Amino acid sequence: MTHLAIIGGGPGGYVAAIRAAQLGAQVTLIEKDKLGGTCLNVGCIPTKALLHSAEVLTEAKNSAQIGLIIPEAGFDWTKIQKHKEQISTKLSGGVKGLLKANGVKLITGNAQFLNDDVLLVTEASGKTDELRPDKIIIASGSIPALPPIPGINHPDCIDSTGALSLAQVPESLVIIGGGVIGVEMASVYNQFGSKVTIVEMQPGILPLMDGELGEMLRKKLMRDGIEILTGAQVLSIDGNDNQMTVNINKDGNNSAISGQKVLVAIGRKAELSTLGLDNTTIKTDKKGILVNPKMQTNAPNIYAIGDCLGKTMLAHVASQQGEVAAENALGHEAIYDEKTNPSCVYTNPEFASVGLTQEDIRGREKDYSIGRFPLAANGKSLIMGSTEGMIKIISDKKYKEVVGVHILGPRATDLIVEGALALRLESTVEEIISTIHAHPTVGEAIKEAALATENRAIHWK
Amino acid sequence: MTHLAIIGGGPGGYVAAIRAAQLGAQVTLIEKDKLGGTCLNVGCIPTKALLHSAEVLTEAKNSAQIGLIIPEAGFDWTKIQKHKEQISTKLSGGVKGLLKANGVKLITGNAQFLNDDVLLVTEASGKTDELRPDKIIIASGSIPALPPIPGINHPDCIDSTGALSLAQVPESLVIIGGGVIGVEMASVYNQFGSKVTIVEMQPGILPLMDGELGEMLRKKLMRDGIEILTGAQVLSIDGNDNQMTVNINKDGNNSAISGQKVLVAIGRKAELSTLGLDNTTIKTDKKGILVNPKMQTNAPNIYAIGDCLGKTMLAHVASQQGEVAAENALGHEAIYDEKTNPSCVYTNPEFASVGLTQEDIRGREKDYSIGRFPLAANGKSLIMGSTEGMIKIISDKKYKEVVGVHILGPRATDLIVEGALALRLESTVEEIISTIHAHPTVGEAIKEAALATENRAIHWK
Repeated sequence: MTHLAIIGGGPGGYVAAIRAAQLGAQVTLIEKDKLGGTCLNVGCIPTKALLHSAEVLTEAKNSAQIGLIIPEAGFDWTKIQKHKEQISTKLSGGVKGLLKANGVKLITGNAQFLNDDVLLVTEASGKTDELRPDKIIIASGSIPALPPIPGINHPDCIDSTGALSLAQVPESLVIIGGGVIGVEMASVYNQFGSKVTIVEMQPGILPLMDGELGEMLRKKLMRDGIEILTGAQVLSIDGNDNQMTVNINKDGNNSAISGQKVLVAIGRKAELSTLGLDNTTIKTDKKGILVNPKMQTNAPNIYAIGDCLGKTMLAHVASQQGEVAAENALGHEAIYDEKTNPSCVYTNPEFASVGLTQEDIRGREKDYSIGRFPLAANGKSLIMGSTEGMIKIISDKKYKEVVGVHILGPRATDLIVEGALALRLESTVEEIISTIHAHPTVGEAIKEAALATENRAIHWK
Repeated sequence: MTHLAIIGGGPGGYVAAIRAAQLGAQVTLIEKDKLGGTCLNVGCIPTKALLHSAEVLTEAKNSAQIGLIIPEAGFDWTKIQKHKEQISTKLSGGVKGLLKANGVKLITGNAQFLNDDVLLVTEASGKTDELRPDKIIIASGSIPALPPIPGINHPDCIDSTGALSLAQVPESLVIIGGGVIGVEMASVYNQFGSKVTIVEMQPGILPLMDGELGEMLRKKLMRDGIEILTGAQVLSIDGNDNQMTVNINKDGNNSAISGQKVLVAIGRKAELSTLGLDNTTIKTDKKGILVNPKMQTNAPNIYAIGDCLGKTMLAHVASQQGEVAAENALGHEAIYDEKTNPSCVYTNPEFASVGLTQEDIRGREKDYSIGRFPLAANGKSLIMGSTEGMIKIISDKKYKEVVGVHILGPRATDLIVEGALALRLESTVEEIISTIHAHPTVGEAIKEAALATENRAIHWK
């Protein structure tokens, strides 16, 4: 029986552990903190819990137009935090139960390499042990990155973890970084009444997603009351009594933005600090650990997955890589293919993207068709009062193959499933068009966008 | 230029008109009532508008658990009706605009066949005209079916059209028929405070959908307060002052159910009464007009689509058939394939189904694998407070091909897009498994259900 040790119990590590157990391995999982990692405890899950409360609040406030009478809609921040905690606790407990049911041995502690084959495990109690597993998967995750900005260590400068657990909703919040974390947190606190300003260095928000839809979302968020400054560089941060000042340069001009708190959300970096990688032959680059498509490092018995690679830091990527690593470690053949990886932003409306963006095809536009369908022409979106969106499909002209699907609209983060499967199966636009899409749904608009790549949408001209 | 006449401006007829116009035809569309037909004016769209108001109300009422303070949540029925009307009016106006933009000639009036080649068109003004188009598409739709039950003609016995426009929310409502219309209307009025009883002759509700998930939904609706009597036959209906009595037989015992109104929702029948089919060679059966997979009747110049066939009465089926008929009428080749047709029920949680159900494979169970994943184990469903659901995938054992996808859960009616595309592309479960599903979404559970067909779900054991 192969003994597999996994370092880290986040969505990469615990999924790898379960998959390996299914394949008959003896699995030891070492996690120093809470099961479920960043995602489940201080990332995706708590953020979506806050966003869900915020969305229902906003929907209640706007419900007069659909005939409801809700004279008063407020919130109890403590209870919102409690609900958020309950979700994380329940899911973390669920992971613990799954590991147990699959016979995975869980050690709460730190694992450090002594060499490529031996791990020194230090439990919380101080007890140490040396493990000599046949195979090792590193899934040590990431931590928030802090840029070298003067004043960034002020206690009212918080990171995403801090922003999830603020004691009160701040009157005003300056967010440095307009990526997914920054934009989602802006959405949360704006809906709970903070005056929110996003400062982003790039010319647009969400620089990794399709720019045209990102720009539509930027305008919507600004109409919702969020201030967004793009192309703006943060020079320094000053902290006074209950008031922070972020000094920026935009278009060559210096100015200052005030806020009760400053959220630094410029991204995350691989967490390798406690692994003892210096004792191994494992190769890294500036971002993180290097692996091949089997998720194997240069040391053949060691695999690495998820955020510690320093590349695409998404829970579902870590999970998929975890399955791939576990299968390879147990003698099966599997390859991680990034192609079907969806990116999601849980704003209102939601934004989801898979495959090539308009930026990706820049300079090769003549080889591609772009089909756009505005959700203002979609019945279900109209019923839901959420028409400020668009579905956009990019196909290549030669084979009419779908190469990118981008959705800004209600339920986008779930609808993207069709886009991912289309990429997986190398679907043509004709195959999407000849698939019946239910009426009335937002999903109908995917077929319309496919039709639009051939200039023949039915409900838009 | 081919002259195509289309009888009926519902989702079958108007979509056929636009597609034909795109292909270069001269198109005349004859509609006697409102553009958009049943679906847009007295069917899917107004029902979903009422359901949306109901859902937001319910969500507001249940929001204390997610930390909101909403001391009072009520509704103004007149405003809800007005919102519903606004949606229908806007979409109907949109259809009118699309027809105009595509150069379709719209005649408001009735079209009657004089023979296979000539239509007598009688406009609302009384003006008549004879049309001799090259091709004709019949899209005359359907009307509610009324069974021969004594007392059914009482004015407080209403059909689905009546149920959409009640002057007040009835204190109590007896619904005869537990199909999609009955169940959705039960959901609407239960959420607005009526005491609702469904009487269904079959052993379960929603007899055309997967029975296991249908049974889960039945239990949920009963917990929500809807009384559901299955295997119950309606004998007669008595009407007194503001009180109706529905006499039933269930399990050999007679009993009576009272309600302020009785909704008869036992289905719809093809509307052929004003077409003058007797003057043509067009063949029909007891249900409706007979067509081949090109949607062509036995008269080669005449096509028929949608509800007037008396088979699958769904707006998106009519639209797809409309595209197929238009393409064939204009000399292109197209076939209508039912395989990817999704069925949706807009309850809370939603219910959507595509492909083979467990009932469809009865007696051949050994040839199939069934994968079930309960949404209680899905993080996003937990966050949304909607864990009473399941995703179920049926695959054949020989090729591991996905043959059925059934979803009871939040956003099911949109998530079913992945199921339909999987059927269209003859996807294997392995292809779904190796497609990355975003976290945290409800859609992740589709991958888990695919894993479960091989007994290797990650988050359930």
